[in-house]
Amino acid sequence: MTEPTRYLLPESAIPENWYNIVADLPAPPPPPLHPVRLDPVGPEDLAPLFPMAVIGQEVSSERFIPIPEEVLEIYKLWRPTPLYRAHRLERSLDLPKDVRIFYKYEGVSPAGSHKPNTAVPQAYYAKQEGVRRLATETGAGQWGSALSFAGSLFGIDVKVYMVKISFAQKPYRRALMETWGAQCVASPSNETAAGRAILAADPDSTGSLGIAISEAVEDAATREDTKYALGSVLNHVLLHQTVVGQEAVAQMEMADAYPDVVIGCAGGGSNFAGISFPFIREKLAGKPIRILAVEPAACPTLTRGVYAYDFGDTAKMAPIVKMHTLGHSFMPAGIHAGGLRYHGMAPLVSLLLDQGIIEADAIHQRAAFESAVAFARTEGILPAPEPSHAIRAAIDEALKAREAGEPRTILFNLCGHGHFDLSAYDRYLAGDLPDYEHPQSEIEAALAGLPSVAE
Amino acid sequence: MTEPTRYLLPESAIPENWYNIVADLPAPPPPPLHPVRLDPVGPEDLAPLFPMAVIGQEVSSERFIPIPEEVLEIYKLWRPTPLYRAHRLERSLDLPKDVRIFYKYEGVSPAGSHKPNTAVPQAYYAKQEGVRRLATETGAGQWGSALSFAGSLFGIDVKVYMVKISFAQKPYRRALMETWGAQCVASPSNETAAGRAILAADPDSTGSLGIAISEAVEDAATREDTKYALGSVLNHVLLHQTVVGQEAVAQMEMADAYPDVVIGCAGGGSNFAGISFPFIREKLAGKPIRILAVEPAACPTLTRGVYAYDFGDTAKMAPIVKMHTLGHSFMPAGIHAGGLRYHGMAPLVSLLLDQGIIEADAIHQRAAFESAVAFARTEGILPAPEPSHAIRAAIDEALKAREAGEPRTILFNLCGHGHFDLSAYDRYLAGDLPDYEHPQSEIEAALAGLPSVAE
Repeated sequence: MTEPTRYLLPESAIPENWYNIVADLPAPPPPPLHPVRLDPVGPEDLAPLFPMAVIGQEVSSERFIPIPEEVLEIYKLWRPTPLYRAHRLERSLDLPKDVRIFYKYEGVSPAGSHKPNTAVPQAYYAKQEGVRRLATETGAGQWGSALSFAGSLFGIDVKVYMVKISFAQKPYRRALMETWGAQCVASPSNETAAGRAILAADPDSTGSLGIAISEAVEDAATREDTKYALGSVLNHVLLHQTVVGQEAVAQMEMADAYPDVVIGCAGGGSNFAGISFPFIREKLAGKPIRILAVEPAACPTLTRGVYAYDFGDTAKMAPIVKMHTLGHSFMPAGIHAGGLRYHGMAPLVSLLLDQGIIEADAIHQRAAFESAVAFARTEGILPAPEPSHAIRAAIDEALKAREAGEPRTILFNLCGHGHFDLSAYDRYLAGDLPDYEHPQSEIEAALAGLPSVAE
Repeated sequence: MTEPTRYLLPESAIPENWYNIVADLPAPPPPPLHPVRLDPVGPEDLAPLFPMAVIGQEVSSERFIPIPEEVLEIYKLWRPTPLYRAHRLERSLDLPKDVRIFYKYEGVSPAGSHKPNTAVPQAYYAKQEGVRRLATETGAGQWGSALSFAGSLFGIDVKVYMVKISFAQKPYRRALMETWGAQCVASPSNETAAGRAILAADPDSTGSLGIAISEAVEDAATREDTKYALGSVLNHVLLHQTVVGQEAVAQMEMADAYPDVVIGCAGGGSNFAGISFPFIREKLAGKPIRILAVEPAACPTLTRGVYAYDFGDTAKMAPIVKMHTLGHSFMPAGIHAGGLRYHGMAPLVSLLLDQGIIEADAIHQRAAFESAVAFARTEGILPAPEPSHAIRAAIDEALKAREAGEPRTILFNLCGHGHFDLSAYDRYLAGDLPDYEHPQSEIEAALAGLPSVAE
């Protein structure tokens, strides 16, 4: 262990631009469509929801977009984040010297995940345009926490619609958001027409991300002082996350290593995009490198869904986008990786999979937790359930390389800590954590509800 | 804000020695006494409880004690920790340019506090001497988590006696320890004579640190394969924490600043010692610098206790030490800063206060939480309740300097995050958090039980 454990960059090495992968794609991504008109949306359609600067980024094809000075100043509270060499995990796996595991750790942010990388610029642009209030949804709570944190720095009120079952299971997440000054309600709520309609049909609804998105979008669309903020899926969100991968490229150079495979867990796609897009840029320029998105087997958007136009939310208020989807009415099983329970996938990630530029794999939650515990007992850090899927995939890659007698350098994104997920660890350790596999008929039923779009 | 936000040291700057303040004291500290014989304890008295290397450090007067290579390798998982300039907090307080606040952040360790700085070497020395199992107590859970983490790295079984009321209030802390492979039981338990005696007298006892220490000491003293580990108070624990202050000295130099006042919260005294002892070394060599220990008004050991010989635990099994104490039978009110609810204080910290080298102040918990929320909304990080006392004192120092029109550079130790303390924030935000002030008669009654020791 004469090689370093952490590769640290100075404050001055925070990237000055976000990297926009659209500039390097072989073809432009399919346009988002209006949910009623079914024709491509324009900036005027999005203006009630998003600040104009954000809309500009959503449709931009510029390769590099400058990060505002005020955002950089806030990034400095936790960025650059460390890149680790997993010395202890490697030894526990009895890996040969030429099979190496690296991980980028985003859990050092105040909100404990990569989410503030986009929450901060979204709040900044809102503030610049005079927005006083932001509405959003959250599942497990990582995104709601991040936007609450960002709102507190800019003096913007934040309203979070939190999926009801998570709201009940994770009272500490709510308390965290409130400590940062945000307001958090369980969704479906009585505060929106979308929420009331769901409750009228099913008073005991435990909610879903799709429902919570509908509530937050309605909130923003119906209030002059309010815009909407989304924590994943959209182009501008993925764009903001590329600071992760840009730093990782520099840190792998410090380590005099280059990854053979880059791994990220994928729910909406933003942390995966964050770590991988700067490496995909190099792949598209000819570097031999594999890029692997890992999703939960209980919400297998990339591995069992279809690549088609679908609604992003349950109430069909958000634009229709072309993506890998299980159908907007699909209800994923109640796995603990709440951040990965989304029926769709970022359009840019979906496009890359469709074009064969990236690979996808699905992992069951017990296998993910098994690896998370092994990781905690060697590397110390307690991982969130979401990146535990990436840990599992990284371990599997390493073991396969060992068996094959091949050298391999593996990089994965540890996108957050699990300090608010200990009830899930408790269940896992008690042997009480089930795996879920949705029958094919259930997925086909949900896919039957896709909108008819002429392409 | 052209000045940096974080001052980061490279891995190579982790101190190679712990700093032993005993070497620089005007006189040697009063010896610990045997709890029955009342004469000074020797290594043979401590041998059933501690590894010999630890006993050697407990009584050492060498100024520098080398940190073993294996411990340094583990420190690299999170050390050096960052030192922050509190730009945003300063602006929110409208401070002039020459009133500056810096903080050292220890919450980046896997266990979320400074405690692993000593848990790792204690586990290391135990492993070196063939110890297979460690027993300890924990209040709020920070120390029990840290020793569980350290035990997992060395393959040592860890048994944690957790104060029963905290065990019930903080199930996530227990789950965290179990994830690292430790066993955690509520104290008083049925597993020790000390625990059974307490339960016989009071079946509903919610426990105390003093009781839990008795249980852990008995566990270690009665099992061949087991030693005891303590997370604060003792000389060797404070010694291990001096990596914090040594790094801070170097980081303040990077910032081209020197603190006028160094602030740490004080419960058992270890995080306070960690940040301050390396600066006290400079003070003893002539530097003009104030050192301030901040304790909770509900457990006012330094500000309302006496400097006298007293037992460290309730069952009178641990050595008698000369320290500031409220009496070993004192039951501090149920404040949320569980890490500060101890009737005594580290003998070295007590000696420094007695000699006028340091100052002490007491702060109520509502005032501490008020500052914690203000801190979270400006600096982002959610502080643990314990260092929130230090935050309050730092803010008060800054405001006093502003009022007086004087320049001041303030440094405090943010010794841990509050991710497991959100129920306390919840209560504070709901206006449901009381302040406690023990009547003088109650303190005097407890002090009447001090042992009679001829000095």
